[in-house]
Amino acid sequence: MLKVGIVGGTGYTGVELLRLLSTHAEAEVVMITSRAEEGVSVDELFPSLRGAMDLRFSTPDVKLLATCDVVFFATPHNVAMNMVPELLAAGTRVIDLSADFRITDADLWSKWYHETHVCPDVLATAVYGLPERNAEKIRSAKLIACPGCYPTAVQLGLIPLLEEKLVDPSRLIVSAASGVSGAGRQAKIDNLFTELSESFKAYGVGGHRHLPEIEQELALAAKGPVGLTFTPHLLPQVRGIHATMYAEMIDPAVPLDEIQFLFEKRYADAPFVDVMHLGSTPQTRTVRGSNMCRIALYRPQNRDTLVVLSAIDNLVKGASGQAIQNMNLMFGLPETMGLQGLALMP
Amino acid sequence: MLKVGIVGGTGYTGVELLRLLSTHAEAEVVMITSRAEEGVSVDELFPSLRGAMDLRFSTPDVKLLATCDVVFFATPHNVAMNMVPELLAAGTRVIDLSADFRITDADLWSKWYHETHVCPDVLATAVYGLPERNAEKIRSAKLIACPGCYPTAVQLGLIPLLEEKLVDPSRLIVSAASGVSGAGRQAKIDNLFTELSESFKAYGVGGHRHLPEIEQELALAAKGPVGLTFTPHLLPQVRGIHATMYAEMIDPAVPLDEIQFLFEKRYADAPFVDVMHLGSTPQTRTVRGSNMCRIALYRPQNRDTLVVLSAIDNLVKGASGQAIQNMNLMFGLPETMGLQGLALMP
Amino acid sequence: MLKVGIVGGTGYTGVELLRLLSTHAEAEVVMITSRAEEGVSVDELFPSLRGAMDLRFSTPDVKLLATCDVVFFATPHNVAMNMVPELLAAGTRVIDLSADFRITDADLWSKWYHETHVCPDVLATAVYGLPERNAEKIRSAKLIACPGCYPTAVQLGLIPLLEEKLVDPSRLIVSAASGVSGAGRQAKIDNLFTELSESFKAYGVGGHRHLPEIEQELALAAKGPVGLTFTPHLLPQVRGIHATMYAEMIDPAVPLDEIQFLFEKRYADAPFVDVMHLGSTPQTRTVRGSNMCRIALYRPQNRDTLVVLSAIDNLVKGASGQAIQNMNLMFGLPETMGLQGLALMP
Amino acid sequence: MLKVGIVGGTGYTGVELLRLLSTHAEAEVVMITSRAEEGVSVDELFPSLRGAMDLRFSTPDVKLLATCDVVFFATPHNVAMNMVPELLAAGTRVIDLSADFRITDADLWSKWYHETHVCPDVLATAVYGLPERNAEKIRSAKLIACPGCYPTAVQLGLIPLLEEKLVDPSRLIVSAASGVSGAGRQAKIDNLFTELSESFKAYGVGGHRHLPEIEQELALAAKGPVGLTFTPHLLPQVRGIHATMYAEMIDPAVPLDEIQFLFEKRYADAPFVDVMHLGSTPQTRTVRGSNMCRIALYRPQNRDTLVVLSAIDNLVKGASGQAIQNMNLMFGLPETMGLQGLALMP
Repeated sequence: MLKVGIVGGTGYTGVELLRLLSTHAEAEVVMITSRAEEGVSVDELFPSLRGAMDLRFSTPDVKLLATCDVVFFATPHNVAMNMVPELLAAGTRVIDLSADFRITDADLWSKWYHETHVCPDVLATAVYGLPERNAEKIRSAKLIACPGCYPTAVQLGLIPLLEEKLVDPSRLIVSAASGVSGAGRQAKIDNLFTELSESFKAYGVGGHRHLPEIEQELALAAKGPVGLTFTPHLLPQVRGIHATMYAEMIDPAVPLDEIQFLFEKRYADAPFVDVMHLGSTPQTRTVRGSNMCRIALYRPQNRDTLVVLSAIDNLVKGASGQAIQNMNLMFGLPETMGLQGLALMP
Repeated sequence: MLKVGIVGGTGYTGVELLRLLSTHAEAEVVMITSRAEEGVSVDELFPSLRGAMDLRFSTPDVKLLATCDVVFFATPHNVAMNMVPELLAAGTRVIDLSADFRITDADLWSKWYHETHVCPDVLATAVYGLPERNAEKIRSAKLIACPGCYPTAVQLGLIPLLEEKLVDPSRLIVSAASGVSGAGRQAKIDNLFTELSESFKAYGVGGHRHLPEIEQELALAAKGPVGLTFTPHLLPQVRGIHATMYAEMIDPAVPLDEIQFLFEKRYADAPFVDVMHLGSTPQTRTVRGSNMCRIALYRPQNRDTLVVLSAIDNLVKGASGQAIQNMNLMFGLPETMGLQGLALMP
Repeated sequence: MLKVGIVGGTGYTGVELLRLLSTHAEAEVVMITSRAEEGVSVDELFPSLRGAMDLRFSTPDVKLLATCDVVFFATPHNVAMNMVPELLAAGTRVIDLSADFRITDADLWSKWYHETHVCPDVLATAVYGLPERNAEKIRSAKLIACPGCYPTAVQLGLIPLLEEKLVDPSRLIVSAASGVSGAGRQAKIDNLFTELSESFKAYGVGGHRHLPEIEQELALAAKGPVGLTFTPHLLPQVRGIHATMYAEMIDPAVPLDEIQFLFEKRYADAPFVDVMHLGSTPQTRTVRGSNMCRIALYRPQNRDTLVVLSAIDNLVKGASGQAIQNMNLMFGLPETMGLQGLALMP
Repeated sequence: MLKVGIVGGTGYTGVELLRLLSTHAEAEVVMITSRAEEGVSVDELFPSLRGAMDLRFSTPDVKLLATCDVVFFATPHNVAMNMVPELLAAGTRVIDLSADFRITDADLWSKWYHETHVCPDVLATAVYGLPERNAEKIRSAKLIACPGCYPTAVQLGLIPLLEEKLVDPSRLIVSAASGVSGAGRQAKIDNLFTELSESFKAYGVGGHRHLPEIEQELALAAKGPVGLTFTPHLLPQVRGIHATMYAEMIDPAVPLDEIQFLFEKRYADAPFVDVMHLGSTPQTRTVRGSNMCRIALYRPQNRDTLVVLSAIDNLVKGASGQAIQNMNLMFGLPETMGLQGLALMP
């Protein structure tokens, strides 16, 4: 039984880790930290957990956390990087759901997160935790940087096209939309029910922090530079990310069903990627609460622009579920363990 | 491994049975029927099931259904009663989620459902499937009438008060609210997103079909007649039932904490009833997708009217989850098997 | 043209006053205050106002406010009572949307609002601004205490029954539900979209601040003491209050249509009360954005408990619209001026 | 006072016409038709209208409709074209909210709407009712083809760029999202609350009927062919359309503020187009219930792709409001008459 610690358990990715791990056969949460809620039982903060676990928030203590086999960081950026080096030194593996280790270039990271990275050397050892691309590296990794929610939805949709050099990497366009839970559990007027219900808007249009992360990883898939225009939007719903991706075909002679076949082959061994039949449209509700990513391909009016649609649950495949998928790989467990719950629909 | 058949699998209780049974260790759905969707795979109708099961809708055939160990009816009323006698004769156990066997008085049933009951003799053998009151009878039952969603939420909240004769049974008032999924998956203008979103209303105020069912069962608990004013309301949300119940204390001298203790004792062995601390308020989202019923007690301004609050997921504890809880008891399985998933929150 | 000032314009009742007054033929907002947003234009905070008005928030200054014909307080409690006396002394009329002048007993007010009332003498001169009961007093009032949102919905539903002594005033029960905008525009985790969406709960069950206000006014209508059990609930929608009211008939021989006729007569001259046909159910969306209150009557199963349903928009008839209705009466304008916009449906 | 007739009054654009015209100083609805609801009063179908008008649905009769000054068609396609010729012959002006007269090429229309156009000659006389481009023609028009909802949001966002030849017209990409009311008031499972709530999806990706309409009008603005990839999405909200538009700059040397200035100049006289400050993001709720279109411009990362955002209420500027704006121009009334209500926010 893996002993699991969670740092920063009062947010939505924290409670989602608790929900998913509560049914995991080989992992047990033994420690969950929160300075603000120290001593409070988790089910007092999250009544959905009542009767399921007997766990209290404790003040984060690296010594104690180091007694765990693996520690998840469900924290804002700039927290993990201050504790990870000591945990790794103690032999504890780390899965960071925050942005601290996602961008390999420390200077680029600083530009977007307005902090100086405190451990660039450790950063260099982090493995980017997208199992559909890095499964091998993940198995032997000591430190995992879990992909952001948007980056997960976008990469799974574009990777096959870029790996096979089917589209122009310099003019990619992504219009994506997220449920409000992506904004976290913070008391801000912008996140009030009254401010978001029955409304839709774009945000971060000028530049969203997930842009450099996406471009970095897509460049690896394309084996060359990529240019992306990325526009996130906010949906009046709690969970779900949907990405609508546009790419120019390099060779318009390639028929769509050939590309469909390519996607199916690329993800044949990926238990959490569902390449839907041609003509399908992924709905976020069909992945709500599940670790699945559903993808569909289009070539509108048979013109030269491909449209790829993908949908995930931002809190599961976009965060806590993917983190557990990484844990499973790191510890030689079945990739799907604890992640087989179906989406809640309706 | 129990062989399970589902009659009427195209509604929300049908797909919820599939979701919950997909993780059940001792039961497997081998047959699911629908005349309209005959031959269609279940995941074509419900993409949330993609990759999880390989099952197609078939035309209902009692002979084939009789090869199952247990058959669930997830149908409108007036369907089950026409097939159940033959299934029982063949030795197949039946769990009916519809209203056909809930009301023991066939004439009363006819009055509310505008049909003549075709098998009053079989009706007489049905066990009302509220495990928190009838566990013993359920264990040996051949035919279970699953309680309605409102009746479940209301009975769990009032039963302890009536069993102990703490309140006047003749002047009970219940104001309850349900998510839209309670109305089923039917193409009706009244159920359109545009008709229900950002709105709230009462309905069936003059008399709702769940009224006679509730009064019948509460009378058994009270060992005498009860009088109930029941007002259902429709919520702009998909899942969840919340009941606010008002009852006049017979002896105002009884302190609230004594009643709280009574509830805790009454449900000490009930794995799916959560009597919350005094001062709590159950939220429907804390049971969304789970089989739990959360209850809280109040005595406003220390006057003589008790207020009991209860919350369930109408599709789980109010329907498919409770049906599986009944199946577990009928076949000597752990009561909670396949029902331990936590609520999806947020 | 009436010169209107608004104190506390950054909340939802403030922006609603601006929306409604923007189409008022005889009133113009010349001043709107906010310490926090001093100097900011109103349409920067509320883009829905862009192009419609050129107004900036200023720091509240009683001297300046006193140059207005009428000042609305759209503030939390404990603000108005500190400025009103000076405004009244200067001859400016005041319409307070907060709770400072609603409860005539200063000690009772202190008990519920945990403050000492600073001007009990002025409190004694305030007129309770429910036009359907106090139109005459309102016409000559200098200071109006606008009713709370719940109290408006409840009083309009119960007043006719109590005035005519048709029901037992000692055992009234009200189950009411409100949209989230009733909680105001404050950065609190409890009010986040992620905490309220797709969920329903009761709150303030032990005692809500609107209880003493409702009991005070109902007692005046009943010409004697009333006992009320009041349970508010929170809806996953922005606007709308729905009240479901239960009252025991004193003389069960009185037929429902006689009571229906009584309501129609009672509100024959009330432009904003719609007594619907027997069998109707008011939906909050049918009053969204409008100043209307819709009411329907039931006598379930022809038993002795009457059920009255009422629906209003908490920000209009429950706050800003009713405030303007009061202003119209105070200044001899047509009662409906500026309030004739129809509900937004769908 | 203009005598107004409405054909097909039982849908959402029909009731929205009634809401908006109820406050119009120079127009009165004297006739509203519906075969299905013949004889029913409009406020029975739409309780939000109770107390505001005394009007009943009648069976459509061209002779009677011809007694009106203007007739609005709020019908599905393939209805108006069968009645319009006779109405025009009788001297009645027509404003068609359906698609029958939007596409000038009858063959192209047939290809997308799967019907043969019955009056191509009349089609040739129709004026496309986008006041921001065709005000002059509209003033003298006898027959107006009201733009679709998506086409309105897209054209207002792209027209200035195409008119000034600032972007490549051959590679336009639009990702747009609509509230559910755009799907109309039809009893379809796909439009149920339970199917759409808390979910987001694309639809019509392969080809939406608004594509040829948009390309036709953009080509007129560009004075040359345009190529558009258009992806509509469905939002879990009732009202609102948001378009996110991507266009490649022809001359990257042109600074964004110059383009901003160009937009402000282009729409300086357009009362219903709000070009927001640089850095703003239009939210659909800031136009809910209003006839306004809000637009914002971006040049992400100062690269060569411009992003234009626009938001409208699909039932107002996208349908009924724009229809009234056209009526005002046709009859020499102030363009904003009856359309000055502010958005309902929150």
